[in-house]
Amino acid sequence: MTTRNTIQKKLYQIIFEHDTWEGRAFDVLLIVLILASVAAVMADSMVDISLRYGRYLFVLEWMFTILFTIEYLLRLYSSPNPAYYARSFYGLIDLMAILPTYASLMFPESRFLIVIRILRVIRIFRILKLMEYVEELEVLRNAFQSSWRRILVFLTTVLTIVLIVGSLMYLIEGPEAGYTSIPRSVYWAIVTVTTVGYGDITPLTPPGQTLAAFLMILGYGLIAVPSGIVTIELGKEKSRRLRLNRVCPNCDHYGHDRDARFCKYCGAEL
Amino acid sequence: MTTRNTIQKKLYQIIFEHDTWEGRAFDVLLIVLILASVAAVMADSMVDISLRYGRYLFVLEWMFTILFTIEYLLRLYSSPNPAYYARSFYGLIDLMAILPTYASLMFPESRFLIVIRILRVIRIFRILKLMEYVEELEVLRNAFQSSWRRILVFLTTVLTIVLIVGSLMYLIEGPEAGYTSIPRSVYWAIVTVTTVGYGDITPLTPPGQTLAAFLMILGYGLIAVPSGIVTIELGKEKSRRLRLNRVCPNCDHYGHDRDARFCKYCGAEL
Amino acid sequence: MTTRNTIQKKLYQIIFEHDTWEGRAFDVLLIVLILASVAAVMADSMVDISLRYGRYLFVLEWMFTILFTIEYLLRLYSSPNPAYYARSFYGLIDLMAILPTYASLMFPESRFLIVIRILRVIRIFRILKLMEYVEELEVLRNAFQSSWRRILVFLTTVLTIVLIVGSLMYLIEGPEAGYTSIPRSVYWAIVTVTTVGYGDITPLTPPGQTLAAFLMILGYGLIAVPSGIVTIELGKEKSRRLRLNRVCPNCDHYGHDRDARFCKYCGAEL
Amino acid sequence: MTTRNTIQKKLYQIIFEHDTWEGRAFDVLLIVLILASVAAVMADSMVDISLRYGRYLFVLEWMFTILFTIEYLLRLYSSPNPAYYARSFYGLIDLMAILPTYASLMFPESRFLIVIRILRVIRIFRILKLMEYVEELEVLRNAFQSSWRRILVFLTTVLTIVLIVGSLMYLIEGPEAGYTSIPRSVYWAIVTVTTVGYGDITPLTPPGQTLAAFLMILGYGLIAVPSGIVTIELGKEKSRRLRLNRVCPNCDHYGHDRDARFCKYCGAEL
Repeated sequence: MTTRNTIQKKLYQIIFEHDTWEGRAFDVLLIVLILASVAAVMADSMVDISLRYGRYLFVLEWMFTILFTIEYLLRLYSSPNPAYYARSFYGLIDLMAILPTYASLMFPESRFLIVIRILRVIRIFRILKLMEYVEELEVLRNAFQSSWRRILVFLTTVLTIVLIVGSLMYLIEGPEAGYTSIPRSVYWAIVTVTTVGYGDITPLTPPGQTLAAFLMILGYGLIAVPSGIVTIELGKEKSRRLRLNRVCPNCDHYGHDRDARFCKYCGAEL
Repeated sequence: MTTRNTIQKKLYQIIFEHDTWEGRAFDVLLIVLILASVAAVMADSMVDISLRYGRYLFVLEWMFTILFTIEYLLRLYSSPNPAYYARSFYGLIDLMAILPTYASLMFPESRFLIVIRILRVIRIFRILKLMEYVEELEVLRNAFQSSWRRILVFLTTVLTIVLIVGSLMYLIEGPEAGYTSIPRSVYWAIVTVTTVGYGDITPLTPPGQTLAAFLMILGYGLIAVPSGIVTIELGKEKSRRLRLNRVCPNCDHYGHDRDARFCKYCGAEL
Repeated sequence: MTTRNTIQKKLYQIIFEHDTWEGRAFDVLLIVLILASVAAVMADSMVDISLRYGRYLFVLEWMFTILFTIEYLLRLYSSPNPAYYARSFYGLIDLMAILPTYASLMFPESRFLIVIRILRVIRIFRILKLMEYVEELEVLRNAFQSSWRRILVFLTTVLTIVLIVGSLMYLIEGPEAGYTSIPRSVYWAIVTVTTVGYGDITPLTPPGQTLAAFLMILGYGLIAVPSGIVTIELGKEKSRRLRLNRVCPNCDHYGHDRDARFCKYCGAEL
Repeated sequence: MTTRNTIQKKLYQIIFEHDTWEGRAFDVLLIVLILASVAAVMADSMVDISLRYGRYLFVLEWMFTILFTIEYLLRLYSSPNPAYYARSFYGLIDLMAILPTYASLMFPESRFLIVIRILRVIRIFRILKLMEYVEELEVLRNAFQSSWRRILVFLTTVLTIVLIVGSLMYLIEGPEAGYTSIPRSVYWAIVTVTTVGYGDITPLTPPGQTLAAFLMILGYGLIAVPSGIVTIELGKEKSRRLRLNRVCPNCDHYGHDRDARFCKYCGAEL
């Protein structure tokens, strides 16, 4: 870090940090450009607009991409540890946000993938000093993290049910009703158990409708399971945070219940 | 307020207050007129009824609007602070409830907007002295208020997913299956992730159906998040209300039930 | 009750009570007859079966109805207080369960209403001594009862939203997309906000789809509110039951918290 | 068990146990074969693939089935108590997983039922020493077990509503709208109350749409009940597990965290 020149340091301050007014101005500009480029691609996908303004949108898209490419290179240049940045979560997103336009030289359709630029807007949380939001996101993530085993078990159960019911429907209803193969029947079963219910494939015979009714009621009831899991975890997360405030004066351990009178680690009075 | 004459004071009592029998009679009459005018507009939107009774409904609508206009002017006249009333929540609703009919002189269709008159019925809570209802509404509002950051983070996450999956589906399925543009594909993704599932646009190819199945399961699981958030907040709100108010004068313990007469910890009288 | 003869008393024991073996045998027979008669009517509604076996089902239906009529008359005859029985919940259901067949002499279609006989099966809970089930039903009912105000406020809010969004869609989409009147648009809005999503009416224009997307996300998020309300109430109901066990030795009041050391009503030590 | 020869003992170790490397290798091989055979049947159900590779898939299927049959016989042979194994949960699944292919000699379609082989993969939890997953599954199962009475009462209520509303719709809408019989109308009511909403049958008349709207709002609200039940049970299950095991030897207080070394109430060592 000592070998970095002044330009690198100044650039780092502007591009990576949010304390100076230049840093903040850069971040806001970046967000505006990202949103504008996503809006441009979305507009370009609409036939009416594409026919009339396609040429301008094409130019615009390349302008945005070249700007983001320069920004990416400057980030690499100014970072104290370019390799670390390039492999970090944000670094990968920054790279993925420019690739689709270059790829479109070979696969024209791929340019629509630049909507993943929207992921860069996650930075908006940091810029606007919305630390509370980041904290909230962390609460949700923690709740998910400490319950992912249970959720995985739940999902495995649902997928097993869906595979078996889908196969049964393939036998009961058959191709006339749209159940042309087991994978397609499993797709129908997922549409049904999640209560989405497109209605593109529907049972026509009484036995099929009976089995479908069972699956619907199952899906209607099973939705309670993730709700229960997440509610419990959010509750625990909440109380964990409340407990963080109580610290033992003897051993500095935190995390004591509100009704605790003695430290549970060293036995000292709180 | 001192310069107001007797008529103003009397009018204020009738129109704004609910203590005298005239005040209550006025309020009940108002509710009946509002419901009748909304019913009339709804009826007028049905072709059969409009063809046969359209003339009468037209007259009726203007009668209602003129009555409400007079009422609005009287409110302005009798209010101790007309400017404050005009800018208040109820004042703005009262104004918006009469504008559509006048606007219909230029834009005939706009008259159907008078259904927003229904918002005036919120007053029904006050009239019928249903203060418990208002309190319950406040509990729900508080629960939302103290969790809106978390809900916003959740919504941002969902919208990001929906934008990316929608764009992928536009590439995978294309216009033949109804995914004619990215905005339309995003509309489909919202229909799917919320488990509404109209079925007006549905994936036809196996890769599209696979991606759709992922989105459905995601939506099915994610519904747990707002449920968890609201449940936790309602629980906190509930216990906060029940507990905080009562403190034991002897041992300083709080958390006594509303019907408690003695401290449950030390037995002292509350 | 003293003036009742022996037959009345014996009949009362068999028909109304469940302690003797005759009483239990009668109840089981009744359940079988009710289920059979409902099944017969459901079968009769299917064209294939009706054409082939309609004659037999017709005879069967009248047989069932005559049996249930005799049973109803015996209940009136043997009851110590016939007027009270006739006006009670079960008495009214027993009457309503036989009327549709007689009404079918004038309105043939009305005979299908005898499916309400199924409500008589609620008795099954009592017969099979499934008191735990009745208790569970009571827990659910109590939870609903103590939160119905909050649920009503929630429903009023949802219906107001649905009325306003429905009217807006009527203006935005119009009859071409199926929004032929405001009531029909409100029906669509209910289909959407509850995440049912039939797809019989769907928005076709971008503005309409945008508004629909908002309504879907709203409905997806709002479902958290009744979940939260019911969860909290069920939790309270649960702890209320646990508290029932602690009784004050001094004043006989029950309902003390688990951590209470003194009676909150009289201050005596527990 | 003493009369078993060395081969039986060795086989038992490999097939039933997971401690030796042969045992683990056998289990992993088994999982791979099961997944491959399920994938083969799913592929065979797709017309394109079946026409081209049907012959190979046919051979493959018989190979898998013969292998699984040999494995089943070896399990019977090596088990210390064959009759007990044959009647156990896993024993029955192992048998059911080979029957469909043999049955397909008489009923060709039945071979698709071999997807139930997927149930054998439940063993994956045991193999990979994923005991935590099994524990989580147990938590979910316990939560369901201690609330199944309540859930049954809930389901009975929903089914009663569905039967009555379905019959009413049959009378209101009739065959023109697709309500061709009461069972079919009940199927529609289940599709609606669970918020699946295929849209294959939809009400066309205003009275029918009004009743349907009521049913939708009911289903939208009722989903809160299983959510509430499961959340409460999961919460109880959780705290029961965490709390009950640890009791302070000094003051007899229970409810200590798993990482607590001293009583939080009296400071004594646990």
